Amino acid sequence: MHRFTCTERVQFSDTDMAGIVHFSNFFRYMERVEHAFFRSLGFSIVDPAHAGEERVGWPRVHASCDYMAPLRFEEEFECELLVEEVRTKVIRYIIRFWKGDSELAAEGRITAACVRKDPATGKMKAVEIPQRFRDKIEPAPHEMLRRPDRK
Amino acid sequence: MHRFTCTERVQFSDTDMAGIVHFSNFFRYMERVEHAFFRSLGFSIVDPAHAGEERVGWPRVHASCDYMAPLRFEEEFECELLVEEVRTKVIRYIIRFWKGDSELAAEGRITAACVRKDPATGKMKAVEIPQRFRDKIEPAPHEMLRRPDRK
Amino acid sequence: MHRFTCTERVQFSDTDMAGIVHFSNFFRYMERVEHAFFRSLGFSIVDPAHAGEERVGWPRVHASCDYMAPLRFEEEFECELLVEEVRTKVIRYIIRFWKGDSELAAEGRITAACVRKDPATGKMKAVEIPQRFRDKIEPAPHEMLRRPDRK
Amino acid sequence: MHRFTCTERVQFSDTDMAGIVHFSNFFRYMERVEHAFFRSLGFSIVDPAHAGEERVGWPRVHASCDYMAPLRFEEEFECELLVEEVRTKVIRYIIRFWKGDSELAAEGRITAACVRKDPATGKMKAVEIPQRFRDKIEPAPHEMLRRPDRK
Repeated sequence: MHRFTCTERVQFSDTDMAGIVHFSNFFRYMERVEHAFFRSLGFSIVDPAHAGEERVGWPRVHASCDYMAPLRFEEEFECELLVEEVRTKVIRYIIRFWKGDSELAAEGRITAACVRKDPATGKMKAVEIPQRFRDKIEPAPHEMLRRPDRK
Repeated sequence: MHRFTCTERVQFSDTDMAGIVHFSNFFRYMERVEHAFFRSLGFSIVDPAHAGEERVGWPRVHASCDYMAPLRFEEEFECELLVEEVRTKVIRYIIRFWKGDSELAAEGRITAACVRKDPATGKMKAVEIPQRFRDKIEPAPHEMLRRPDRK
Repeated sequence: MHRFTCTERVQFSDTDMAGIVHFSNFFRYMERVEHAFFRSLGFSIVDPAHAGEERVGWPRVHASCDYMAPLRFEEEFECELLVEEVRTKVIRYIIRFWKGDSELAAEGRITAACVRKDPATGKMKAVEIPQRFRDKIEPAPHEMLRRPDRK
Repeated sequence: MHRFTCTERVQFSDTDMAGIVHFSNFFRYMERVEHAFFRSLGFSIVDPAHAGEERVGWPRVHASCDYMAPLRFEEEFECELLVEEVRTKVIRYIIRFWKGDSELAAEGRITAACVRKDPATGKMKAVEIPQRFRDKIEPAPHEMLRRPDRK
């Protein structure tokens, strides 16, 4: 899979005194979509099914967002996740937020590293993405990755 | 000790589209004060200094807040924590939020239980508050606990 | 109507380092349900359909929560809102959070005041709840309001 | 001015179940520093001192963060804001988060646009940054903008 979509609604506590969704909440929205994408593939970001050496985590090493149009209270919006790249140890996602008549409200990016706890140091270190993820996650076609103005 | 105060400032992301601090954030403010109170006594809520049997946590079993006047962006306010009661296994706090000319903006309550992980079940269970906390935390005098209109 | 239910899922950013939903987030969950209840009746908490004198807001004057069992990442839970009381100027709600096999995780209360901007002072003041809300919102039967252990 | 620093402490509610500050909260930290920088210059982001045509806002058009090392509960960290660029209608900031022995925990960027409400459409539109801001805000020297590993 290289694409996942879902619909969300702006909650009151997501807004700020400017009357729009606070810019930091788009990063929480992005993560929500990323985790729903994992669930749609039968995975969980927290990976309780695997223990010890097999268990991996997915912390962010980079996140960004471009803001084009505000989202407001009770507005429904569509979240579209695209897999931008699957590298040896990281996956890069693009997440688009579509409002109303297919207007792009924001476009974000997350780079998540695949990490495992090093038994020697107790620290997380980046490791190769296990095959069970590679089997199901693939990059989206190039033409889907260019930012559109409208859907 | 039975009282602790500190001064905070309303951050932009604490506000909502009504232009005031979102009601849920007063509970985060309360916790911030509770933890600062612990630090002022040389403790940490997370208790890294103790391991195994000695280690305790302080989850909430109850929290409440009465809202009298809104707090707004960049407003400075004083937080006043009072120890309401020290029972065998729980501590009850009152936290008052004072604005401007000593007006009571909100008054909250937290009941924190002292818990320890049960080695048999892996679950948290309420235990007697260790003496090291009892030595330093005591209830405030009764007359301080009655809600005032103004300072 | 006196009851509304919906199902939610714990998001990663709702959790804290104790591995459970942070206690303050139950208040955001409560508000989410209250607003969904309003939408289910054809209303919006923000009331854009009415202007000037007719426009009312619903700030909280009280909120509380009792915590019985933690909610964890990706756990689905059912939210059950009950109208506890409709007074002249305030509505009181009970919101229950049910987990897994019908265990009560938490029970919260919100008292929301009906307010209107006073044109003279620019301040919000409590007013009588308009008839359009009274026509649709009524208190739940008494036996539903007693806290159950299980569903 | 082209630089501003302040010290913050990680709050419990900033953490997630991974035991570290949730990645979205770095964006709230960035904003906190940006607003403190404005206050240090005698400004407020919300600009209550100016009305009508003179009043401007500073929404984000871009935000990003690179994560190098986690921040944990109760850890103190230093926030360092640098003005990266002052363009006609936008200001770009770099915000660095320093932990313990001068290790760079994260480096973020915000691009804030200067906007004013268009009286005709009611929409925000980008405008030239007023002189009162230009008089006080200037880009940092180039050598300060290159990312260091350590302080």
